[in-house]
Amino acid sequence: MKKREINIGILGLGTVGQGVLKVLQENREFIEQKIYPKKIILKKIADKDKSKVLPDKGLYKIFTDSAEQVINDPEIDIIVETIGGFEPARSLIAQALKSGKHVVTANKEVIAQAGYEILSLAQKNKVHFLFESSVASGIPIIGVLSHSLTSYKPREIIGILNGTTNYILTRMSEDGSDYEEALKEAQEKGYAEADPSKDIDGFDTFNKIFILSAIAFRAKINLDNIYYEGIRNISKLDIEYARELGYTIKLLALAKNKGEELDIRVHPALIPQRHTLANVGGAYNGILVRGDGFGDLIFSGPGAGALPAGGMIVSDIIEIIRNFDSYNNNYNYFEVKKVKDFKETHSSYYLRIRVKDRPGVLAEIAGSFAQKEVSFLSVIQKGEAGEVVDIVFLTHLAKEGNVQEALKKVACLDCVVKICNAIRVVDI
Amino acid sequence: MKKREINIGILGLGTVGQGVLKVLQENREFIEQKIYPKKIILKKIADKDKSKVLPDKGLYKIFTDSAEQVINDPEIDIIVETIGGFEPARSLIAQALKSGKHVVTANKEVIAQAGYEILSLAQKNKVHFLFESSVASGIPIIGVLSHSLTSYKPREIIGILNGTTNYILTRMSEDGSDYEEALKEAQEKGYAEADPSKDIDGFDTFNKIFILSAIAFRAKINLDNIYYEGIRNISKLDIEYARELGYTIKLLALAKNKGEELDIRVHPALIPQRHTLANVGGAYNGILVRGDGFGDLIFSGPGAGALPAGGMIVSDIIEIIRNFDSYNNNYNYFEVKKVKDFKETHSSYYLRIRVKDRPGVLAEIAGSFAQKEVSFLSVIQKGEAGEVVDIVFLTHLAKEGNVQEALKKVACLDCVVKICNAIRVVDI
Repeated sequence: MKKREINIGILGLGTVGQGVLKVLQENREFIEQKIYPKKIILKKIADKDKSKVLPDKGLYKIFTDSAEQVINDPEIDIIVETIGGFEPARSLIAQALKSGKHVVTANKEVIAQAGYEILSLAQKNKVHFLFESSVASGIPIIGVLSHSLTSYKPREIIGILNGTTNYILTRMSEDGSDYEEALKEAQEKGYAEADPSKDIDGFDTFNKIFILSAIAFRAKINLDNIYYEGIRNISKLDIEYARELGYTIKLLALAKNKGEELDIRVHPALIPQRHTLANVGGAYNGILVRGDGFGDLIFSGPGAGALPAGGMIVSDIIEIIRNFDSYNNNYNYFEVKKVKDFKETHSSYYLRIRVKDRPGVLAEIAGSFAQKEVSFLSVIQKGEAGEVVDIVFLTHLAKEGNVQEALKKVACLDCVVKICNAIRVVDI
Repeated sequence: MKKREINIGILGLGTVGQGVLKVLQENREFIEQKIYPKKIILKKIADKDKSKVLPDKGLYKIFTDSAEQVINDPEIDIIVETIGGFEPARSLIAQALKSGKHVVTANKEVIAQAGYEILSLAQKNKVHFLFESSVASGIPIIGVLSHSLTSYKPREIIGILNGTTNYILTRMSEDGSDYEEALKEAQEKGYAEADPSKDIDGFDTFNKIFILSAIAFRAKINLDNIYYEGIRNISKLDIEYARELGYTIKLLALAKNKGEELDIRVHPALIPQRHTLANVGGAYNGILVRGDGFGDLIFSGPGAGALPAGGMIVSDIIEIIRNFDSYNNNYNYFEVKKVKDFKETHSSYYLRIRVKDRPGVLAEIAGSFAQKEVSFLSVIQKGEAGEVVDIVFLTHLAKEGNVQEALKKVACLDCVVKICNAIRVVDI
């Protein structure tokens, strides 16, 4: 007889783990109809902090501070890993898969750094490993790429994948806040952690675009070759000047299938104000998937939060239960692909350069750029004439390495006070 | 031994059927990797027009003008129905399911009018019945609602689900074209059919919102109780006035879960200009799914076309092949739900009323509306003073039945020349 009661064990009761509990409790009836005649039984919950307040008294009797105890429970069918971070999460997931348990996780770091290994472990043990909430938690992009866009050859993915930085940039753009003010506000509202560096410096987005690239292009890629850069250098002045030029600044993840190579990178970018992605504000995420002949498919939705993330994890649990008695490997192949050397990629640039306000400056700067084959689309002097002025340049497409070398040279020119900022422009 | 070669039969080689052929041919390698070690074999293609030009000479030997011959081929595993329209498509689908074949279709009319019956026929015969491309073809909304948002209780769906009308309204809005001009242009570009009434009058959108409501709310509803209205009455003047008020006019499908009842309807509506859905232009479709605590999930993508529709059909074929040796019923229950009587629903209204330009007119009109509990948010006189002028009213939320009765009364007032238009306002 087929198993009717499916036992769940949860590892880690942070924001996401609590979200899972909340969704399981609040939508119990709705969920049970979907998996009928099967039933979800919450068998064990582990968190190293035994003093954690649980939403329901009855849960204390299944609460433990030992993850091992959950993993080793032979009756548990599905492990939900919501600890976060690389270790011990990776080891616990591996251990669970090896002991024949299905696993659901939101852990982008584990998947980015050990995903191929974990997927093949799942395959070997014929168990499901699902991770919908690891990228853009409220947007079911993994499911869409894995199940719905399967006949579709994605050519390009462009994403706003981090809620924290998008919240900060939106505040800076809409209220004219400084970066520091906006960060503080994000921390107060719970959108940014006390140490926000993983978000701010682009590391979180970097993990996510790796996951999307691997799945969309079915590519085996070396994570270390992906360039990433965060938003610490974006000032409200840049946001203002960008707006005057018709652009909005976002932290973008880009992944382009160039046949033999993939162009994958994370950096802030000016994108056209009128594009749907430019209007993805606050802690929301947005993703564009472009395929030859298929047009642009755009998703926007909550990028974080207990309910969106918890809800997606529970959807993964439901998917496993519905396929409990069968096993399909959705990730049966990955083709080795090279990530294009970042220096060899091409971008247009927004440059803000502070110069001494005297004749001949523009000729000198333009000359240095021209030597590196970087030419300008527009040049606008900003602010009042005085001893120094800022000049904003928009460049034509140029090779990344060339722009970097030109910037080094220009920074040394006597007429240049400072390269205030250099931000790529992406005309989506 | 498990079956390796999966035989496909295609019924109907219109735009969508041709799209299926194109995707199968162009992405053959990509698709085969996804279903390895299984293989897709195109076994038979039927179209009543034997003179149809096929994209590949080799296909002529599997081409027939008899749908029956395809359905009755015992070797065929999956039938792709791309004939369109209600009959004979419904009968052919039913016949295929009864003979144990899986079915993929893009046919919204069949699903809207006979979906429950067809789904239970599929269930009885333990075969897959997939229909992703029936709604907003390039947006995988059926898959998302069926597989990814399963723990998620959608409260509301708002959609722009018809590419033809969205193309016409976009042209009218962006180029200031008349309705007739825009329709002609849509026909020339292949976005509208020679007889465009199914699109223009909202029937197509009506079928689609029924499908989305049934799946999102797991509801068994009576199709006949859904109100729908098209865009024939929208003039470029209304589009202009709406813009001045901060709105864009779209043909909207709305479905709200109100517990015991569902409020489902299709009509043109003024929506806030800055909302993402207002920026879904041309032949694109857009869908918003709102859930308590989950925020807004928005999708936009191509709403029609050979490749998006054909691509989604092929994705459905891949999904069936991946689950070929197992059967999961994703639609195991539907709960009977009442569609709220349209007269009992509430809307705000944009009203354009042509009146004789003389004192006391406003008091008279306002009085008639007030008797029916319809009050105004704003009143603006349009155009030069003269014998007659147009007045644009925005109302507060009012009961649909009351607005209709008030409009009838107002139309009979001596000071009123004509009710030029009455369009609902949806503040998304």
